[in-house]
Amino acid sequence: MKRLVVAIAGGSGSGKTLLAETLCEKLGDAVILGLDSFYRDQSALTHEERARVNYDDPETLDFEEYCDVLKKLKNGEDEVYIPVYDFVDHVRLSPRKLENAPIIITEGTLTLIPGPHRYYFDYTIFVKASGDIRLLRRIRRDVAERGRSAASVLDQYLSTVRPMHKKWISPCEKEANYVFPNDSMDGLEEEPLEELLYKIRRLTYENH
Amino acid sequence: MKRLVVAIAGGSGSGKTLLAETLCEKLGDAVILGLDSFYRDQSALTHEERARVNYDDPETLDFEEYCDVLKKLKNGEDEVYIPVYDFVDHVRLSPRKLENAPIIITEGTLTLIPGPHRYYFDYTIFVKASGDIRLLRRIRRDVAERGRSAASVLDQYLSTVRPMHKKWISPCEKEANYVFPNDSMDGLEEEPLEELLYKIRRLTYENH
Repeated sequence: MKRLVVAIAGGSGSGKTLLAETLCEKLGDAVILGLDSFYRDQSALTHEERARVNYDDPETLDFEEYCDVLKKLKNGEDEVYIPVYDFVDHVRLSPRKLENAPIIITEGTLTLIPGPHRYYFDYTIFVKASGDIRLLRRIRRDVAERGRSAASVLDQYLSTVRPMHKKWISPCEKEANYVFPNDSMDGLEEEPLEELLYKIRRLTYENH
Repeated sequence: MKRLVVAIAGGSGSGKTLLAETLCEKLGDAVILGLDSFYRDQSALTHEERARVNYDDPETLDFEEYCDVLKKLKNGEDEVYIPVYDFVDHVRLSPRKLENAPIIITEGTLTLIPGPHRYYFDYTIFVKASGDIRLLRRIRRDVAERGRSAASVLDQYLSTVRPMHKKWISPCEKEANYVFPNDSMDGLEEEPLEELLYKIRRLTYENH
């Protein structure tokens, strides 16, 4: 059985995860693969050094390993082991099993940057939200869910998130098959969601 | 002696005040007139009602009075009385004297919206900054200088600042003689500042 790989990219706070989860739920028979599982282990560095690493730089991700997992999923292996990353200590934990499914939805800020991993994608989506909306969502999430101060979120936004967005993420928009607008604060918009579901379902059908 | 009126518009956090103060200092013989001095007195409302007013709506400003002051300044009256607004209680205090000068720099988010006040402007500037940068500056200012919580700044941004920016402020860009880019966090950029100073000085010279 052929597998369909749908890749979702977009800036921090654009709504990638919400879209991935919604597609997964609505399509059924789908599994989510987060690119951020593939952050490299930083245990060789001191905790101070780890805090200074720019995690918005593609270099911090193991794209080779990502390719390897995508290949196995696409080839129909039933169970694939994927890395588990500890975002507090920046180290790898024990890998976990991911059950394969007919539709593989992979999401992450950098999924659409150039590289051989793109060879495995059947359909690509860029979630597009305005800069102020993305910053606002990021502050709310990081302050409410991660206990950070607004000041530290703003500092990080200026020093790494924003420049890396311009350099790596924003140019990916033109690579996508579908640009999903997502400035609303009341969930995903119905119309593009329906259109997207229609397109993916058609591809799944053609794929058989 | 003829007076030159330079109007500066732009969104909240775009850097209007910094530009107005810098122009005033570099040009000399200039005076600043803030449009936000002309907020209407809200003492007829209860404090609860005042808190619910949308202060990003042009209706909350007395443009007639603004016109009147601009006319007097432009006509060369030596001293003009301008209103003083109390931003905490949303009431007018005793007016203050403003000494006239050869160059009048007037700034405010809504200076360039359509209306007869624009008749008095000799040169118009729109300070343009990205939405995320404007939001970031606004949070830093409101939290640091006005003791507000980041959460309340974000709520207000979504409920009034952002929609009013789209409706009223953003369309003013095309009305301006000069669009001043200001995304930098390290002060105003030298090149557009020099160009702007050159243009205004030439106008001052032609005006005599």
